[in-house]
Amino acid sequence: GRAMAAWARTVRGLLLDVNGVLYDSGGDGGVPIAGSVEAVRRIKASGLKLQFCTNETQATREKFVKKLQGMGFDMSVAEVTAPAPAACRILKERGLRPHLLVHDDLIPEFADIDKANPNCVVIGDAAENFTYANLNEAFRVLIGMEKPVLLSLGTGRYYKETDGLKLDVGAYMKALEYACDVQAEVVGKPSKKFFESALAEMGVPPQQAIMIGDDIVNDVGGAQRCGMRALQVRTGKYRSVHTSH
Amino acid sequence: GRAMAAWARTVRGLLLDVNGVLYDSGGDGGVPIAGSVEAVRRIKASGLKLQFCTNETQATREKFVKKLQGMGFDMSVAEVTAPAPAACRILKERGLRPHLLVHDDLIPEFADIDKANPNCVVIGDAAENFTYANLNEAFRVLIGMEKPVLLSLGTGRYYKETDGLKLDVGAYMKALEYACDVQAEVVGKPSKKFFESALAEMGVPPQQAIMIGDDIVNDVGGAQRCGMRALQVRTGKYRSVHTSH
Repeated sequence: GRAMAAWARTVRGLLLDVNGVLYDSGGDGGVPIAGSVEAVRRIKASGLKLQFCTNETQATREKFVKKLQGMGFDMSVAEVTAPAPAACRILKERGLRPHLLVHDDLIPEFADIDKANPNCVVIGDAAENFTYANLNEAFRVLIGMEKPVLLSLGTGRYYKETDGLKLDVGAYMKALEYACDVQAEVVGKPSKKFFESALAEMGVPPQQAIMIGDDIVNDVGGAQRCGMRALQVRTGKYRSVHTSH
Repeated sequence: GRAMAAWARTVRGLLLDVNGVLYDSGGDGGVPIAGSVEAVRRIKASGLKLQFCTNETQATREKFVKKLQGMGFDMSVAEVTAPAPAACRILKERGLRPHLLVHDDLIPEFADIDKANPNCVVIGDAAENFTYANLNEAFRVLIGMEKPVLLSLGTGRYYKETDGLKLDVGAYMKALEYACDVQAEVVGKPSKKFFESALAEMGVPPQQAIMIGDDIVNDVGGAQRCGMRALQVRTGKYRSVHTSH
């Protein structure tokens, strides 16, 4: 209708989720979702501003971007807003020294951060590093603090890889929250601050931006609370769960 | 005072927690807490009824009792109320076929239970079996159900072993609850039904029984909601956490 068309004309920027929207991740590196390489190309050609807004924490931004470039995506490191660099800013601002429970490939993001005598725990999507021993260790660091501080790189429940659904960082965050009776501080979607920093990178106000993702809570809910419109695409985990019933 | 003495005369039965009260568990089998072997002997000699009320799910009752007898405790299988046998009754009553995420040594408790084509997940303190792969597998079974059914053998946050604190089943229960957006049904302390079955074994009504444990939620809170008095002892995890600050 006319209202829709008027609204569409006000859109100046897109925030795009990556995992489950542009590609399905997996042990083999993952595979692009049909049409998505071309979609990114068209968005850029249209003159719309574009920022990739991801909770990816299984690799540094550099490595992540390289992988997606290898699949054909037109993407640069500066166009990616991701939790680990945001967490590093917070750690420095507040003098926090993290115990890291993260994926091996994310550790280089924290190279400049003092990690001696930890006074907080940072949890990301550690995948294979979510071992019984590592979870107990992170728990003991937290429970040993006078006032436990837990930073969680996202709150995802699960995601789809090429070999099936996997528990995401949010599930393990809940385990530590419960065990230590603390509430994690979320760095990444759906945190308002995280969306705001992605919008700032594009230089577009929330009313003129749309978030496109496959997660109703992290992508759609988070963006809406920020004053943005949001669209849920039915790829990624959406399809896996809804077609299994 | 006089009121206290009058109350003490009405006490006819004790429910005793085991882990952290009678002994500290551990990879080496664990060690009795000083004075506890003698305490059990005295309670029995006094004529008080006694039932051991435990959330232990790392072994069958038979194996568990054998271990404690080996430490010198006067204890029989019939005197132990534990989650796995209670869960088996529920599974049979409701025609539930479990996918088990439990300790290897607990599996014999479920020998008579049909486990083909699972329509629920049972989670216990799986310890080393809490691997990334096993958690993902239990998650996939749950998320694939029209209406996920999760039975949790207890809700403990953590417990003390001889080599330190360990995350308990409750933490992993929370992870699955969050990932699947379900609420677990608890079999074990602090469930009212569980305390009631322990009292029924002793043949003592709640007003005439005391629960003694080291966990403020599972032992003390659960027993009080059942109409019993409860005492928290300061051994086990109580000491570990409160002396580390």
